[in-house]
Formats: sequence, C-alpha cells, structure tokens
Amino acid sequence: MSSGPPEAVQSSVVRLLVLGGDAAGMTAAAHVRRAVPEAEVVVVERGPYTSYSMCGIPYYVADTIPDAEDLVVRSPEAHRAAGITVHLETEALAIDAEARSVRVRAVGPGAPREGEWDLSYDALLYAVGAHPTLPDVPGVAEYGVVVHTLDEGERLKGLLDELDPEGKIVVVGGGYIGMELAEALVMRGFKAVLLDRSTQVMRPLDPDMAEHVRHRLVEFGITVCLGEELREVRGVDGRCSEVVTSKGTHPAELVIVAAGSKPHVAMAQAAGCALGDSGAVAVDPRMRTTVADIWAAGDVVESVNLVNGRRRNVQLGTHANKQGKVAGIDIAAALRGEEQTVAAFDGHVGTAITKVCEWEIARTGLTERECFEDGIAYAAAAFEGTVTAGYFPEPGKAWVKMLAEEGTGRVLGVQLVGNGGNIGKRIDVAATWCQLGVTVQRAQFLDLSYAPPFGGVWDILQIGARKLVRELGLQPAL
Amino acid sequence: MSSGPPEAVQSSVVRLLVLGGDAAGMTAAAHVRRAVPEAEVVVVERGPYTSYSMCGIPYYVADTIPDAEDLVVRSPEAHRAAGITVHLETEALAIDAEARSVRVRAVGPGAPREGEWDLSYDALLYAVGAHPTLPDVPGVAEYGVVVHTLDEGERLKGLLDELDPEGKIVVVGGGYIGMELAEALVMRGFKAVLLDRSTQVMRPLDPDMAEHVRHRLVEFGITVCLGEELREVRGVDGRCSEVVTSKGTHPAELVIVAAGSKPHVAMAQAAGCALGDSGAVAVDPRMRTTVADIWAAGDVVESVNLVNGRRRNVQLGTHANKQGKVAGIDIAAALRGEEQTVAAFDGHVGTAITKVCEWEIARTGLTERECFEDGIAYAAAAFEGTVTAGYFPEPGKAWVKMLAEEGTGRVLGVQLVGNGGNIGKRIDVAATWCQLGVTVQRAQFLDLSYAPPFGGVWDILQIGARKLVRELGLQPAL
Repeated sequence: MSSGPPEAVQSSVVRLLVLGGDAAGMTAAAHVRRAVPEAEVVVVERGPYTSYSMCGIPYYVADTIPDAEDLVVRSPEAHRAAGITVHLETEALAIDAEARSVRVRAVGPGAPREGEWDLSYDALLYAVGAHPTLPDVPGVAEYGVVVHTLDEGERLKGLLDELDPEGKIVVVGGGYIGMELAEALVMRGFKAVLLDRSTQVMRPLDPDMAEHVRHRLVEFGITVCLGEELREVRGVDGRCSEVVTSKGTHPAELVIVAAGSKPHVAMAQAAGCALGDSGAVAVDPRMRTTVADIWAAGDVVESVNLVNGRRRNVQLGTHANKQGKVAGIDIAAALRGEEQTVAAFDGHVGTAITKVCEWEIARTGLTERECFEDGIAYAAAAFEGTVTAGYFPEPGKAWVKMLAEEGTGRVLGVQLVGNGGNIGKRIDVAATWCQLGVTVQRAQFLDLSYAPPFGGVWDILQIGARKLVRELGLQPAL
Repeated sequence: MSSGPPEAVQSSVVRLLVLGGDAAGMTAAAHVRRAVPEAEVVVVERGPYTSYSMCGIPYYVADTIPDAEDLVVRSPEAHRAAGITVHLETEALAIDAEARSVRVRAVGPGAPREGEWDLSYDALLYAVGAHPTLPDVPGVAEYGVVVHTLDEGERLKGLLDELDPEGKIVVVGGGYIGMELAEALVMRGFKAVLLDRSTQVMRPLDPDMAEHVRHRLVEFGITVCLGEELREVRGVDGRCSEVVTSKGTHPAELVIVAAGSKPHVAMAQAAGCALGDSGAVAVDPRMRTTVADIWAAGDVVESVNLVNGRRRNVQLGTHANKQGKVAGIDIAAALRGEEQTVAAFDGHVGTAITKVCEWEIARTGLTERECFEDGIAYAAAAFEGTVTAGYFPEPGKAWVKMLAEEGTGRVLGVQLVGNGGNIGKRIDVAATWCQLGVTVQRAQFLDLSYAPPFGGVWDILQIGARKLVRELGLQPAL
C-alpha cells in the first residue's frame, strides 16, 4: 500500500525514488528533476543533511572549517526549491521489487510523518552508502565513536569540547580518515594515538611509501602504534577510560573508530539485486542492478579497476558524483521510454589523494602488493625527487614510486608522498596514464611542463618512466 | 687542417664534436661518452659555463639563489672528469661539411689556446642555442642589457649592485623572462616598468587569461605599459637615462631587453643545413639535419606541434634535454656503424609553466588565436574555479580556459592562471590529453584525484571538459 505524505501522492506521474541523499543520490535526483519535468523525484535520507562533503569532516573536527553547515554543498531546502521532494530522517527498511515500492520509517523529527509507510516507484536509485565497520571486541559498541556522517561529526565535536583539552584520544584505523582525524586532534591540542593492526599506515600504499607517511605522523606529534590489535575498550562510570590492545593498554578519554566501512548492501540483496565479487552491489556501466527498475550508485556499488580488471568497492565522492550523474542520465531516459543512453561509468583506476600533517600523499593504479596478488609481472622504481629545482634554497622533497608492466611497459601504478605543495595533484597525470594504458616508453617523451619553481628539467614522473624503461630493458632508454 | 690542442688529437678514433655546451649539447655528449667508449667527445662552448639552468637566471637576479655557480648543474670540470674534452670561451665560426671540420677561435682566457684553429669531426652536433632579439632602435645596442646567458646574468647582477636601490628600471618584453625579471627587480626594491608593444603580457596566453596575469603584476608593484613600442634609449655620460616609447618617455637607470630570442641558424645554414618553415634548423625525429653527419638539437631546431601539425621553434630546456638525449642515442649508433635506432623526438604540444609574483601560470596546446590562424573549429570554456574545496577558509582562485575541437571533442589546449599553489602543475594532465588526442567526453570520466585540500569533487579540468561536452553538443553530457 503506497501512502506517502500528501505532496508526494500524484498517481498520474512517474516517480523516481532515491534512497540516500548524498553525492550519488542527489546528483541523480537533480539530473532527473531537470531532464524529466513531468516526473516526481522523491529522496529518502536517513540523516538530517543532504549533499554534504563527507571528506570535509576531519577539517571541521580540526576547526579549520567552523560550521557543519559549511560542508553542506546543497541543503534540503535548496533541493526542495528545485522541485525535489526530500524526506529527511527517514529510513528505508525494505524494497518490494515486485510491487515497486519501498517501506520506510521515520527516525527523527525531520521526517514528514511518524511511523512507517510505503513509497511507490517507477525507478529506484539505491544510493544508501556504507556503514562503518566496528571491530567485534568488548566495549567498542558502548564507547567507540564513529565519524561517518556529518551529524556524527557534530557529535564528535561536542564530545571534544567537553574533554580535558590535553586529553589522550585513541583513533583506531590508520587509513585516510584515521590519519586525518588524528591530525585534527593534535591540531586541537589533544594527544592522539593512532592504532592499526596492520604493520603500516595507509594500506593503499606499499609499505616503503607508507613508512615515509608514518615518519611524518610521528614528527607531527601523533603516537603511531602499528601491528597492534584492539582487544577491548574499557570505561568507568559510562565514560571511556582505557583501550586494551594485543600489546598493552592505552589510557583514553575517547576512542574513535575509523576502521573502514562496508557498503550497505542488505536491502538491495533482499530485493534480489546480485552482489559482485567484492561483496558490493553489482551494476552495469549504466548503473543498473540485476533487478528491473533498480539502479545503484556511490559507496554501495562495485566498479571495475581498469588496470587489473578486478571489480572493487571504492568509496569516494568523486566516483559517487560521476556514477550518480550516469544513473541520472540513464534513469531519465528510462522514464521517458527511450531505449538507449550513451552515458557509461567505465570504471576506476584507484586514484586517491590526501593531505595529512601538511604533507601531500597520492596514489593511482596498482601497488606491488596488488600486482603480486594478480600475478602481474612488473618492475618498480622508487626514488627521491624534488618538486622545485634542486638549486632552490628549500627544494621540496618528494618520494616517488612507479610500477610498469614487464614486456609492454604499461604504467601500472604510481605512489607519491611529499612535503610542501605541488606534489599530490601530479597523480592525475599518472592516473591518466594508467587509465589510457600509456607506456613508460611513451610517457618519458610527453611534453610536460618545466620551470625551476616546479622541479627539475625532467619531471619526477618522467624520471620514473625513464628508470623503468631501463629496468625493463625497453627501447628507447633515454 | 685539423689542429686541436694536444689532448684532442687522436687521429685513430672517431670524434663527436658538439657545438654548444648547455642542455642539448652536454646531454648528447654525456650519452655518447658512455655509449661509445672508444669515441672522442669534444665540446666547444662560447661562454665560461656548461650545463646551467638558463631558466634559473631570474631567481639568481632576485637573490633567491645566491651564487651563479648554483645554477650550474654540471661543471666543465665534472664533464672533463667523465672524459669529455671541453673547450670553454671558444666560438665556432664556420662548418666545412665537405671536410667535416669546424673552424673555431678563442674568445676568452678559458680557451685552450689563442687564435683560430680547426676541429675535425665524424659526427657534429649543432646545439648553439639562440641569441636575444634586439629591437632595431637607437640606443639599444649601446645601453640595452640582455640576460640570455649565465655570464650575462652575472653582469646584470653587478650592474644592479651599483644602482640607486630605489632606481627605476625598464624591462622591454612582457613574456616569461621579462615578467620574471621585473618581479626579481621589485623583490630587490627597484621600480620596474614592464614595456611591451603588444596589448597583452604573455602572448602564449589568450588575452582574457593574460589580463589576470597583468592584474597580478600591477598588484605586485610592477608598472605594466602595454601597446607601447620602444623608440629610443637615451643616455648621459655613457649611462642610460631614459627610454622613449610610442607613448612618451620613462626615466630609466637601466634598460633590460627580454624581447625574445632567435635560433642561431647562420652557421648551419651556411653549411647547407635546410631551415624549416619556422626559420629554425629542420631536423628529422632522430635530430638529423639535411646534411650528412650533422645533427642539431635544442633552441636551434624546430619540431612539430602535435596538436596542429605546424613546425615551430620552441626554446625550452625540457625539449633541449630530450632532443639532446635522442641525438646522443642516434649519434652513438652512427659512430658504432649501426643502421637503426628507435629513439625519436616526435614533437611538442606547447606546454609551458611559470611562477610569477607568487602566481602559477601554465598553458599547453593551442590558444584561440592559434586555432583561428589554423582554421580549426573549436569551442572554448573559460571559468573561475578553486584549487581547494569551496568551503575552505581561503580557497585558492584559479582561472581555467579549455578549448576542444568541434565534432571530435578532442582537447586542443588549456590555460591556467591561479594564486596559491597546486594549480600550475595540473597543466601536465592537460598536456597528456593534448598529446594523446584525448576527447572531452573521455576526459570528464577519468579517475582524477579528489580531496578537499585540492579542489572540488569535480577537478577543474573535468569541469572544463563537461562544459565543452555540453557546448559542443556531444554525448554524454554529464
């Protein structure tokens, strides 16, 4: 039984129902809103915000960005003014693909009504994102703080304001978010302990590159504990007091868990949508799931890594936006009864970047670990370069690692770590090379820019390419 | 009659003779030295230095780099220690291609002997660079200072040390070097007047983009006089006193001429080497001239612009290095009697970058002016973006201009101007796109990096690509 709130009941029009009001969902909603004026577009969002920058949360925690609202790219009001129906604090519970309807329930005062009700759809976009992974150890559920959504970011900031300003905080998880949060804590005066069971920070880097990052985190004032597994979080009087690990205990006034997040697949799976090898929702390049009239996009789906052909679940805003746009184009065509669309999300090459403790860190393509797992024969060049001419008073340091395939010379991956500016965004050059299958033989000749404030006469990426041409015995070796 | 200094007379060995001891010449010399141990490698250089960074001279003038020696990447002594014979302060006068010898003469105390003599060769690399263009008006030859070589940079620095520290200096020429020198002068406390007969600075940019640069130069304290032609330089008692232009007069304690430079082709031309359409020495992709046993590389040659197919003389260290390497590989093969080499310099796409008055400026491919001249149908997108997320306290500004071809969507060119860091080096992404013929339809989907400290979720280059996809009516328009 479909019984949405009055403004959403218009049985004569086609309806796009979007589950999830962030990057992927709202991008698609906005596209369909413009492209199919006669359609009704309804968005169901569990939280109180729409279209916000999840990646910006650590900067908000650090007080670099004063208000949570600053991270909202487009408010529910703005979406509503554009003609999109937005149900905030409304949780989707189950999809009935047969009946083409979704059961939802109010979870906060921002919901349009109380209790549970059904919303029908002609097209459904499943874009509910991911949920944080919590280590299954005692005390985590009770004391562990997660910072996956903007309202969780606000909650954390409230907690920090109440803490001893020099208190000790344990961050579990040495990935992007964990490092960025640990940095934010140090910037606010706290003592931050970064804990990871892995023997390195940032698993998307090879260990030798991650070691440069670890060194910098320590230099910045973060206590980095690697190869140390969380066993228990203990509290006194309802407040966190200490963290027990495989190696000992850390007093802790707060424990933040940033141990990754898993795509929220349960509802789609229950509706019959196939999952892929990665465990995320399988979609075709038009973002269609295996169930008719259901599309999926963003952190819930998997996409193909164009370097090794494997399907992976990559949770990044940049993909969510592109996928949301492709889904929107395809849904709009479907709602208009058109047969073909040309929009396609072909895949990714694993590009990622961050700035932590003033350093820029970026990667694209495959690491040595990934090449090894895939049995790809490769050579690697790792070296130290500079991002200004060597004769400049303080030439920036850059560590570069590049991988190329044996035989073909195809660039497989690049990792960059450097102090100062002008290093991280160079990864986009390498990302283009990886995505287009450019070889090191070709790369070494490309007309890349040179001026002393930006490096030596051979760009660091071309130095890498030259090293690999020689290493792999390819021609011409410059 | 070949009668080199004793250490260079070894009639039983093959000899590479290199004219010009900077980037192109020394790169080739060093390669042949390593690749053909039995060959004698002799370099003739007019000045007192080898292998120095010409692009670094403005930073030396600005006192950012204290010593001229700091700009020397590899000294004559270092080259000699590697087994290369280097004749400094020795000028090549004429090539006898028939006799395979070059007449040279001593022009300074660093020469190996006095007077004139001949040096024979089995292979000759012509890499004598370019010479500054002097406007043909009264007083320029007498009072105009040029800064094309490192010793000229030293001379300028000496002159500046003697001037009134708040004196007025006119720089003629609003290109890269002119702007960089004007900036250096302001940094040292002088009043700098930048004069150009063109109505814009930086002709490699379109006027709208150059206007942002002009604005910044003025903000930095440089007096920028455009559309103003130099008519005369006047002096009193042998010292410069004023500059007369088409619009009036400027008092000036010094006049620096940075009005471009022309490839030094006369000697090659006299030896029978064909010049190309651009007026520079014509070479094939292996850097061979039209005369047997004579190669040419660096600022003296032309190469093909891979976007529009036109041959151009591009004077940049990055090309000089690559061309020198290719020439070295080909010469080494020739000296060893090998038939084929695979090294080839395919051409350029016109990539250039500079940092002026703290701003980063870069370009690649074609401008609107160039498209117009070539009759290429295109669309342009020019817009303002940011190089950090918009919600950051001080998001850097970036002006972006992108051109794509009608019909195909091929990226034709990109221009970038921005304050703060992390803008200029993004040109290498666009350069790769231009060189590989990537379309805007493809570019908008590439897996480029995103994190809030580096921009919005759509990279500025992908915003440009999206705009052009829509503008050109291509599919899919994201």
